Amino acid sequence: MRKIAVGQAGGPTAVINASLVGFLDNLNENVEIYGVINGYQGLAENEFERLEGETLDWVKQHKNVPGACLGSGRYLLTDEKIADAVRNLKNLDICSLVFIGGNGTMAALQRISMEAKSIGYNLQVIGIPKTVDNDLFGTDHAPGFGSAAKYVALATRDISKDLEAMKNFEQVRIIETMGRNSGWLAAASGLLKGSIEDGPHLIYIPEVPVTKQNLLLNVQDMVKEFGMATVVVSEGVRLGGQPIGKSVLDGRVILGGISSVIENLVTTELGLVARAEILGMNQRSFLAAASSQDRIEAYEAGKKAAELLLAEQTQLMVSIQRSDEIHYTFKLESCPLEKVAKGGERLLPAEFSSNYGEYNKWLTHLIGEHIPPYPPALKRRGINEKQYSGCK
Amino acid sequence: MRKIAVGQAGGPTAVINASLVGFLDNLNENVEIYGVINGYQGLAENEFERLEGETLDWVKQHKNVPGACLGSGRYLLTDEKIADAVRNLKNLDICSLVFIGGNGTMAALQRISMEAKSIGYNLQVIGIPKTVDNDLFGTDHAPGFGSAAKYVALATRDISKDLEAMKNFEQVRIIETMGRNSGWLAAASGLLKGSIEDGPHLIYIPEVPVTKQNLLLNVQDMVKEFGMATVVVSEGVRLGGQPIGKSVLDGRVILGGISSVIENLVTTELGLVARAEILGMNQRSFLAAASSQDRIEAYEAGKKAAELLLAEQTQLMVSIQRSDEIHYTFKLESCPLEKVAKGGERLLPAEFSSNYGEYNKWLTHLIGEHIPPYPPALKRRGINEKQYSGCK
Repeated sequence: MRKIAVGQAGGPTAVINASLVGFLDNLNENVEIYGVINGYQGLAENEFERLEGETLDWVKQHKNVPGACLGSGRYLLTDEKIADAVRNLKNLDICSLVFIGGNGTMAALQRISMEAKSIGYNLQVIGIPKTVDNDLFGTDHAPGFGSAAKYVALATRDISKDLEAMKNFEQVRIIETMGRNSGWLAAASGLLKGSIEDGPHLIYIPEVPVTKQNLLLNVQDMVKEFGMATVVVSEGVRLGGQPIGKSVLDGRVILGGISSVIENLVTTELGLVARAEILGMNQRSFLAAASSQDRIEAYEAGKKAAELLLAEQTQLMVSIQRSDEIHYTFKLESCPLEKVAKGGERLLPAEFSSNYGEYNKWLTHLIGEHIPPYPPALKRRGINEKQYSGCK
Repeated sequence: MRKIAVGQAGGPTAVINASLVGFLDNLNENVEIYGVINGYQGLAENEFERLEGETLDWVKQHKNVPGACLGSGRYLLTDEKIADAVRNLKNLDICSLVFIGGNGTMAALQRISMEAKSIGYNLQVIGIPKTVDNDLFGTDHAPGFGSAAKYVALATRDISKDLEAMKNFEQVRIIETMGRNSGWLAAASGLLKGSIEDGPHLIYIPEVPVTKQNLLLNVQDMVKEFGMATVVVSEGVRLGGQPIGKSVLDGRVILGGISSVIENLVTTELGLVARAEILGMNQRSFLAAASSQDRIEAYEAGKKAAELLLAEQTQLMVSIQRSDEIHYTFKLESCPLEKVAKGGERLLPAEFSSNYGEYNKWLTHLIGEHIPPYPPALKRRGINEKQYSGCK
C-alpha cells in the first residue's frame, strides 16, 4: 500500500475544498491517504490524519464548503522546519506529498523535495494551484480567483448603485480589495460596469503607481462628471509611501487600510463625504457568489493532480490552460515547480491594465454565468431634467 | 387627472425599487405620476419628474436592481423645509404623496400631512416601510430586512468557516453589522449556525449592554473551547462609552468602528491575532444574496400602497402581518402613521435576545429558501486526534 499525504496552505478560497475532493475522488484503491492538518504546521509538527471511512466521507462533504477543511493557516517554514517535515514524512513512509496552495506553497514543495533528495529519500511532490490574487506563474489563472473576482465585481456594481441613490449626501466610496502586489482582483471590479456612468469610476492597482495629487484630481473629475465616484483600490497600493497594514505576532504584515487613507484625503482635501469599504474575507469565502466555472476547474485541478500522482510524475504544479477559441474551453496541464518558483509573482500585464475592456473579455469566462447589465444610467439623466413646467 | 407623487428616502435596500415598481404597477390610468428626485431634497427643492412613457419603463426596469432609482439620500427636513415641500406639492396640484422609507420617513409624512392641513390643503399621505435595521414599529418586519439578514447570515457563516482553517495564525474575527439602536441584523448572523463549534460564537447587540471586561472574558472562553471566536457586533454597541463613528458635514454621525475597538482590545489584552470585518454597504445592496421572499413582500407592500391610495385612505403606513400558522404566510395591512411615529424605534425583544433559537425560527421564513447546514464540525475533532501510530 502506497502512502500519500495531502494538505492545504495559506488563505482559503471558496473552492479550495473542491480541489481537495477532486484529488481524493480520483485516486485508486492502492493508496493510503493522510491528511496534513493545518498546512505546513502539520508537516513540521507531525500532525497527520488518516483519511478513510467516515473521515474521508466527512472531507468529501466539503466539496462545496468554503474554508479549508483540513486546516491551512500560516506557519513560518524555516530550513529547520523543512528538515522536520521531511523527517516526519519519511517516518510515516509517505512517498508522495500533494499540497494545494499559492506561490509560497509551490516554493515550499520544491524545498521539501530538495531536502528529501539530500538525505536519499525519494519523495514525489505535486502542487495544486490556489490563490484569490491570481499571482501564480505557469497557469492561465488559478482556482479561487474566479470566485473572488465575481464577488468583487458584484459588490462593486451594487455598492456603486447604492451610492448613486445617496449622492446628495455622500459622493465617494473607496472599495478596497485583496491584492498585495497584483491588481487582478481590483481590476475585476469593472467586469459588470454597464455604462460610463456606472461604477467603478476609478481603479488603482499596485502595478500602476499613482500619487496622492493625481488620485485627488481624478476623484474630483469623476464627481464633477457623475456627481459621485466609486474608487476601487488594491490593498497593496502605496500612494508613494509604504503599503498600509499592521504587523502581527510573527512580524508578518497584514495589509489593509489604504481605503481609509484615501477616505481621509478626499474628505480633507476635497471636502466631500467619502466612505471606505474593505471587502475583506468575503472575497475568499462568500459561497453564495462563488463562480460555478471556478468550482469546476478547482475540482478538475485536483483530479489532474491525482492523475499526475498515479503516473509517477513529480515536481510539478497542475496548471490551467485556456483554448484560443472564442468559446472558452480549458485544459489541465502541468508546469515544473522550479519554473513556477522562478517566475515569481505574476502581475497584471500592461495589455490589461491599459485596456480594461480586453481584461474583461479575458475574465468573463471565469465567472461561470452571464450576468445581464443593469439598465443604463444614461436614461436617468432625463429623469433629472425638469420636464414638469406645464403642470402648474 | 389626479396627480400623485412618489419618492424614496434614506439608505437604499436590495428591494426598495421592488416596492416602487409594485406601487407603479398597480395604479390605474386615472393618475398622473410624479417621481420625487433624491428623497426629501426633491420635495423641499421642487425636483420632481413625470413618470410616464420611457421614463416609467425605465423605473420599472429597476424591479430587481439595488439602490433607489429615483435617488433617496439624506436631507435635514427642518420645519421650514417641510413648509417648502408642502408649497411645492400644492403648486403642482399633487393630491397624494407616497414615500418609501423608515422611521424618519413615516414621521416626515406625518409632519407634511399636518402642515398641509394647517394651510387647508387636503393631501393624502401613505408610507411604504423600508429598513434593513427592522426597527419600524407597526409591522411584523420591514421589506429590506430579510435580504440584509440573509447577507449577514451567509457572510458570518463563511467568514467563520474561513477562520476555522486559519486558527493556527488568527483566532478572532469581529464582524460588524448595521444596527444603530437595534440588534435584529446582528442577531441574524446566527441563522445558519449548524453546530455549537460553528460561528458566530458571540453576538453583541445594543439592547443588551456588555462591558469590555465581560466581552474579553467571553472571547477568551470561546477561544479556549473552540480555538477560535467569531464575534458579531452591531455598529451601535457601546462597551460602556459612546457609540463609535465619525461626524459628517451636517453633524450626523455615521456609525462604524466598534469592531476595530474590539480588535485592539483582543490583541492587546488577550495577545491573540484578531481581525475586524465591517460588512458595510453590501448588507443593503448585494443583490446576489437578496431574499426572494423579501423581494415578493417588497413588491406586495408597494401594491398595497396603490390600493390604499385608490381607496382614498390616508395617514397610513403599509404593514406586513404574518399568520400564526406553522407554514408562514403574510398579509398586507396598514397602520396609522401616528402610531408608527409614537412607537419609536422597535428593538429586538427580550424573548429573542435571550433565546436566539426562537429568533431564528421567526427569521427563517424571511430568507426565502432553505439553506442546508454545512457538515457538523464535531467530526472534525476526530480528524485532529492522532490515529496513525500504527503506520511507522
